[in-house]
Amino acid sequence: MLADSGTVRPMANGGDGTITLLPVVGLPEIERGVDLMGLIAQCQPLRDGDIVVVTSKVVSKCEGAVVELAGVEPSSFASAWAQHWGKDARVTEVVLHQAARIVRQAHGVLITETHHGFVCANSGVDQSSSGADDRVVVLPDDPDASAQSLRARAGELGADVAVIVSDTFGRPWRNGQTDVAIGIAGMSPMQSYIGRVDPHGHEFRVQELCVADELASAAELVKGNTSRIPAAVVRGRTWERDDTASMRGVIRDASLDLFR
Amino acid sequence: MLADSGTVRPMANGGDGTITLLPVVGLPEIERGVDLMGLIAQCQPLRDGDIVVVTSKVVSKCEGAVVELAGVEPSSFASAWAQHWGKDARVTEVVLHQAARIVRQAHGVLITETHHGFVCANSGVDQSSSGADDRVVVLPDDPDASAQSLRARAGELGADVAVIVSDTFGRPWRNGQTDVAIGIAGMSPMQSYIGRVDPHGHEFRVQELCVADELASAAELVKGNTSRIPAAVVRGRTWERDDTASMRGVIRDASLDLFR
Repeated sequence: MLADSGTVRPMANGGDGTITLLPVVGLPEIERGVDLMGLIAQCQPLRDGDIVVVTSKVVSKCEGAVVELAGVEPSSFASAWAQHWGKDARVTEVVLHQAARIVRQAHGVLITETHHGFVCANSGVDQSSSGADDRVVVLPDDPDASAQSLRARAGELGADVAVIVSDTFGRPWRNGQTDVAIGIAGMSPMQSYIGRVDPHGHEFRVQELCVADELASAAELVKGNTSRIPAAVVRGRTWERDDTASMRGVIRDASLDLFR
Repeated sequence: MLADSGTVRPMANGGDGTITLLPVVGLPEIERGVDLMGLIAQCQPLRDGDIVVVTSKVVSKCEGAVVELAGVEPSSFASAWAQHWGKDARVTEVVLHQAARIVRQAHGVLITETHHGFVCANSGVDQSSSGADDRVVVLPDDPDASAQSLRARAGELGADVAVIVSDTFGRPWRNGQTDVAIGIAGMSPMQSYIGRVDPHGHEFRVQELCVADELASAAELVKGNTSRIPAAVVRGRTWERDDTASMRGVIRDASLDLFR
């Protein structure tokens, strides 16, 4: 494999190119203010070079990114939409509050651009697993900062890990959802092939892979949405330390986007 | 984890929920008509329950899904577009020939719906790694059939495996590409949570995960686009045998698609 460009030595991996996906089994229900990375490390001892993928829902719960519906006053816009489609107007109001812009609004579906810049259904607001019917979980306010904080805590515990905060998004053209990254720390979300050549001397047309999204999808395979396994460890994937890592570069500029 | 619905006993996995991603190292350059699964099994001995993910490019080469540009006569439409954006008009003609419909045409980018129904850039036509400048690789004519054929061959060799044919696609809203599935055999591309409840008694809103795409993305992490590792084995993921598996159900019906 060609060496990655970059000034920092890649973290060591297993050596034979094999990657292991480890579910973090045994986490308790996550409450506000808990030491989430400490709990993860107790359930799954971490090693330098691991990539820890954490479902945004538990990050949100830990950070208190939960909205009590009793205190929500729906706008007339939210009420009209909710009534037409049989939704809870208070939840619709939270969805709109989390949105910077509505991208599509049809068939009872609200595709929004969140205040972070992510395009997804319902601004990522989650009505399941919030612990009660009268609360919804919203996305972490700054998922990169959440990932940085979790990475720093792992460092205190003695492990130099990258962290990805993931969520489950739909997408155009294809049925079914997949897990993607919404926050990252320690490693770049992208792997660039710009300027590299294949064995035949062709320069690559595939210029950048979003490895952060691929890692989030890989982790989902061992987490599972119905089981209480909101975190996974990816072991054996080489990455380069990047203390400025952010998902901002993954969000396509609206002026270059053909579908926004 | 809740048991999957279905009548067929899941394939056994490692037992502890861990998944291993194994690169298939040492494959020769793939030529038309080679025993692709035989070569894969030589490089990476297969076990019952493995999921073998193969990059479409080598499947295409094996099947002769390669177009000699010398024999391509560009239409005036292709020529005009190619001249305007500095492309090879013969390649543009192949892209149009592989397309059922143009979804977007802007900034020198052709987003098409392929004759299979996949929406991607340039109908999935690949100008790199075709072995010579005067040839392009197109997607396999029937990637599900390709996967079925590879699965059947693995069976002859003694291993009951699922097979995914993958390709590297871009997507709206997010920079960077990821690997997705374009053909499948042996297992359903989807995992449904419809009707299931979480630990709090909430019915799941996330109804279906496209595990085929997640598996393709996971496999990319050990394949790598610049190295000659066009296949990977996913070991430890439980799946149920489905001899009718197809990617057709993943292609969203155009009438339900908000972005087509």
